[in-house]
Amino acid sequence: MAEPLRVALAGLGTVGAGVIRLVEANADLIARRAGRPIKITVISARDRSKKRPVDLTPYTWEDDMVILGERADVDVVVELVGGADGPALSCARATMEAGKALVTANKAMIAHHGLELAAKAEAAKVALKFEAAVAGGIPVIKGLREGAAANEIERVYGILNGTCNYILSTMEDTGRDFADVLAEAQAKGYAEADPAFDIEGIDAAHKLSILAAISFGSKIDFPGVETTGITRLRAADIAQAHALGYVIRLIGMAETQGDKLFQRVQPHLVPFGHPLAHVDGATNAVVAEGNFSGRLLFQGAGAGDGPTASAVVADLIDIARSTMGGGEIGVPFSVPVAELEAMAPADSGPRLGRAYIRFMVADRPGVLAEITAAMRDAGVSIESLIQKGRAGDAGAVMVAMVTHEGPESAVAEALRLLEGSASLTEPPLVMQLLGE
Amino acid sequence: MAEPLRVALAGLGTVGAGVIRLVEANADLIARRAGRPIKITVISARDRSKKRPVDLTPYTWEDDMVILGERADVDVVVELVGGADGPALSCARATMEAGKALVTANKAMIAHHGLELAAKAEAAKVALKFEAAVAGGIPVIKGLREGAAANEIERVYGILNGTCNYILSTMEDTGRDFADVLAEAQAKGYAEADPAFDIEGIDAAHKLSILAAISFGSKIDFPGVETTGITRLRAADIAQAHALGYVIRLIGMAETQGDKLFQRVQPHLVPFGHPLAHVDGATNAVVAEGNFSGRLLFQGAGAGDGPTASAVVADLIDIARSTMGGGEIGVPFSVPVAELEAMAPADSGPRLGRAYIRFMVADRPGVLAEITAAMRDAGVSIESLIQKGRAGDAGAVMVAMVTHEGPESAVAEALRLLEGSASLTEPPLVMQLLGE
Repeated sequence: MAEPLRVALAGLGTVGAGVIRLVEANADLIARRAGRPIKITVISARDRSKKRPVDLTPYTWEDDMVILGERADVDVVVELVGGADGPALSCARATMEAGKALVTANKAMIAHHGLELAAKAEAAKVALKFEAAVAGGIPVIKGLREGAAANEIERVYGILNGTCNYILSTMEDTGRDFADVLAEAQAKGYAEADPAFDIEGIDAAHKLSILAAISFGSKIDFPGVETTGITRLRAADIAQAHALGYVIRLIGMAETQGDKLFQRVQPHLVPFGHPLAHVDGATNAVVAEGNFSGRLLFQGAGAGDGPTASAVVADLIDIARSTMGGGEIGVPFSVPVAELEAMAPADSGPRLGRAYIRFMVADRPGVLAEITAAMRDAGVSIESLIQKGRAGDAGAVMVAMVTHEGPESAVAEALRLLEGSASLTEPPLVMQLLGE
Repeated sequence: MAEPLRVALAGLGTVGAGVIRLVEANADLIARRAGRPIKITVISARDRSKKRPVDLTPYTWEDDMVILGERADVDVVVELVGGADGPALSCARATMEAGKALVTANKAMIAHHGLELAAKAEAAKVALKFEAAVAGGIPVIKGLREGAAANEIERVYGILNGTCNYILSTMEDTGRDFADVLAEAQAKGYAEADPAFDIEGIDAAHKLSILAAISFGSKIDFPGVETTGITRLRAADIAQAHALGYVIRLIGMAETQGDKLFQRVQPHLVPFGHPLAHVDGATNAVVAEGNFSGRLLFQGAGAGDGPTASAVVADLIDIARSTMGGGEIGVPFSVPVAELEAMAPADSGPRLGRAYIRFMVADRPGVLAEITAAMRDAGVSIESLIQKGRAGDAGAVMVAMVTHEGPESAVAEALRLLEGSASLTEPPLVMQLLGE
């Protein structure tokens, strides 16, 4: 059998331990499928003394993860440190500058520095792979970059954050409110102690910006993602959506509008008949619409040590296979970085769709007339409207409506007309309806 | 830009026309993604004079598809003729003997001759790719062979035949009977004039045998697939299943049992909560359970010219990318043919599960006692049982039951005890329940 692919592991948290377990447990089948063994040779992490759930004695310890790529006993560095900058970025840069391949699960780093890193990889003719950065164990980067490569992708969207999906589906199942379910998720370890990255939609936006670049051949534009999290959702919103035939999911959605790129992370109402309506718990799912393939759906575990390790090692197997005999390793995105198009962010105004709008209003006469007049004046046509008695807050009443199809700009205009109204006890909440 | 990859197309039916349309429509993006243009140079089909929906004048006509691979203006032959043997097989063999790569959508040929063809491809060091042979436009061969490559796959199953799924979901929606819906599907062109391959489960079995080989690294064993179609299903079965919380889907299922391989195509009861319960119409879906990835789901259009062409051209892009600079093309299955294991077919008897059993019985006293006694004597524990009045047939009554979990051998034994009973007006129908 050919020479092993020698791997250095930077970062020994949950995922790092998962990669070690996987490479050990499945060593034989990996060697058969890759055509040669994959062997972890060197490991590195910030704190050597920390107790870890796997035996590290078989591996050489390296204090400085930045020089891993320079070592003669390393062909590929796997970066599992996390964080957009800092040691992860230094390690990634240095690895490729040393002419070694890089595999990473670091969505923040790719979202912020993916273009620079890809250019470095192309210059050094080494692989840069990041399957584990998007949607955990689901091979969706490969599915889009290679499996759907023959298609012009028109739209890519999905459920990209397992923590949010766990919270939303638990709220749905139990009727409990957001803060309550979040606290429980934190206690159970399903949500971070500082959950902002997840519940504010930032993690999903990182992943979406990567998916968009792969799908459309555009430059990664993380700042261009319009991002709304799930923190303002109430149990009553979920109940109301349910009564109308929808569940609520945090959807990351990217599509081209001519030469512009629309990217948004926002809770959406998803109709019961849509495959994403049945994605529960920490599961992730990505839908891509190709001009020949039609709608493709990829679904699986969006996080966790096993699934993430599965994606990391799939990248290593790809590298082991493709670099045998000096083969081409391919470019990190669908096309070389120099050919990725800089697409300006598209305005959401002209987008046609239906929206759910929820107001919390003072319980007094004339409020409904004020809201519906604003809708009329902005040209928003209301399909259904429900006013519910006290929603728990002192004196506040919930008014929820679903609009007929129309431009998003009309809804924005209606909300502008209502801005500053003393009738509203908090800013309105808008969610788009996902089409069938 | 590098030299184009020159493609010969054998077979100009619906899919062939779709490939031509795709390669023309998406030529620019394909060239960017593949690193070089993909150019159809030569075409061939059985009947040159037949009218076809695409303009063929830009392409050189070759009468004899067997010599396509020998032509100097051809790098890859795409075989879209169909049929396990005959011209398709001759063309495939000759192509690789001539040292050229082969892409095919021909599930029957791969199911029957895939090992021989893969050995030829390996000997000639050329690519043999067949993404389009399984589940149309869904990149599931790539997803399993590469995306899930780090995993020991424990089970792979799914909805592999769009015609059957269309018939079953239409029966479900309309309450109509099988023969009626089949006739309509034939009139609409959703089912072949001779639908046996589809409705008897043979097409699904072809695809399952290929998925199993990729998933388990086993030799393709099409004769080892235990195959039951959907022809005996009644509207009443679907209604009964629905009342119990299930839909009926034709499921292809493969799993390892120690060093043996279990492969079955059979209608199953799928619980509402399972993702496959929401796969309607001609859609296909494949679930793979890996020991680290957990459950992965791939879903999309299982047939049609666009989706199938998308899969064919994805294979061509892979070849265009990997053969540039003389890179490795990889082996057709997950491991070299010589390393594929010959796994003996596993006996279904010890498999634990729950089953739906439906009897059509004479409407007279004592029949229910006879059936339940047989169940008792065979050790089958009944969870629920429904006897329904006349089901339309002269004098026959339907008795449907769902068993508690137990070995399949017990159900088989019960049915053996009832064999030849004058009370049964037709053989019992057994369907397994798919677990959550």
